[in-house]
Amino acid sequence: MAEAAALIDKAFAGRRTLIVAGTCHVHYVGRASSNLENGERLLIVKSDGSLLVHRPVGHEPVNWQPAGCVFHVQIKGDELEVHGIRQKPRENVKVTFSHLLMVSALSLEDAGEFLLHASEDDMHRAILLKPELIEEGFKPISWEKKVEPGFVDIYGEDKNGKLVIVEVKRKTASKEAVLQLAKYIEPIKAKVNREIRAVLVAPSLGKDVQRLLVTMGLEYKTLDPKVCAEVLKKTESTKLESFFTE
Amino acid sequence: MAEAAALIDKAFAGRRTLIVAGTCHVHYVGRASSNLENGERLLIVKSDGSLLVHRPVGHEPVNWQPAGCVFHVQIKGDELEVHGIRQKPRENVKVTFSHLLMVSALSLEDAGEFLLHASEDDMHRAILLKPELIEEGFKPISWEKKVEPGFVDIYGEDKNGKLVIVEVKRKTASKEAVLQLAKYIEPIKAKVNREIRAVLVAPSLGKDVQRLLVTMGLEYKTLDPKVCAEVLKKTESTKLESFFTE
Repeated sequence: MAEAAALIDKAFAGRRTLIVAGTCHVHYVGRASSNLENGERLLIVKSDGSLLVHRPVGHEPVNWQPAGCVFHVQIKGDELEVHGIRQKPRENVKVTFSHLLMVSALSLEDAGEFLLHASEDDMHRAILLKPELIEEGFKPISWEKKVEPGFVDIYGEDKNGKLVIVEVKRKTASKEAVLQLAKYIEPIKAKVNREIRAVLVAPSLGKDVQRLLVTMGLEYKTLDPKVCAEVLKKTESTKLESFFTE
Repeated sequence: MAEAAALIDKAFAGRRTLIVAGTCHVHYVGRASSNLENGERLLIVKSDGSLLVHRPVGHEPVNWQPAGCVFHVQIKGDELEVHGIRQKPRENVKVTFSHLLMVSALSLEDAGEFLLHASEDDMHRAILLKPELIEEGFKPISWEKKVEPGFVDIYGEDKNGKLVIVEVKRKTASKEAVLQLAKYIEPIKAKVNREIRAVLVAPSLGKDVQRLLVTMGLEYKTLDPKVCAEVLKKTESTKLESFFTE
């Protein structure tokens, strides 16, 4: 235990990535409070002062702290105690090991870029799963709906009951995108006796496109494909499937 | 590499918790797609087939898969490739190591219970941070508002502009809780010329409490303190603070 404590202490001082496996219990007091009874787990403390406690099953940590904790280690009787403290808000996590299986301190270097990609189709799916990406209260009715002269990406209703047609672009939207959206308005107006809003959704707008939108009375909503990819990645697969089999 | 591959293979077969540290790149295709360039990271594969890739900073994994992936390992030239596949939805993650720092396979046993605790005050804070815990479109106006003969827990507006008063209990709500809520209605009605809704929020209702609520025209919303604790735990601290200093 004393040897492990010395290694852990050195890891904290050297801002290494610390991995400890063993039997522990965890006590947390802060934004809420929690108690985790004894069991065999992984403790990971990163160089930025973030903390994770992982059980042998489940992709979510059972305890975690964001970056910025200050750690120290001490021996208390037969136990080794890792103590993490954050100041704002005041948070306190204590991981107490009664038995150790592994202690490892690594200096990891990682400058690799992470690139998340979503297709236009992925963006549609993300909006269907999380309609508030368009706006609060938006309710999708259908997607890829056939409306001569083509297909409307997403077709829905806003919180005031107005019909909303949505055109999605995954890159900077051009004037062509605006005209593509505009051409659906008259055919739909001819069929339904309701107010219609047309919303162009894209990560950004090309030159003079904003002016064209205003002139034509259309709306614009910024949406980054990366945000959509994250929504898709975070949404449990079962939810996605239940939507698409409805 | 060959030795490491054999150990990893054995870990997968024996459903152990696998920890690999080293230089890797990660490619994912599934609900979206992503590429992570070369860098030094931790790979964790759990006994339930969940996967985590952790960079040396940040509490969130850069790549993750829920339980149910099937893994295999192979040597390709100078590299070691860990390949995880999920069927529904089809997902594919490949972690390719060019250099290994550590490989560890552990049999972890963990039956310890996790207890998350939130006080009534924590529940108020969770509702203020995430008003949809009450209902979609709910907007809190103030909390612990003094209204003779006491204090209203949370005071807000619903999506139709009706005034809502909320009484929160962290345990099974008794008839006393209903009467406590009811006594605020008349004093508030006497002051404002608007429709008022009164909502009792608790994890459950005691015997005959439902009937009393209906008789008195009050509403009930189930809310588990654990859910509130999770909301507080997941909300970035900065957000919480900015709310309370406003």
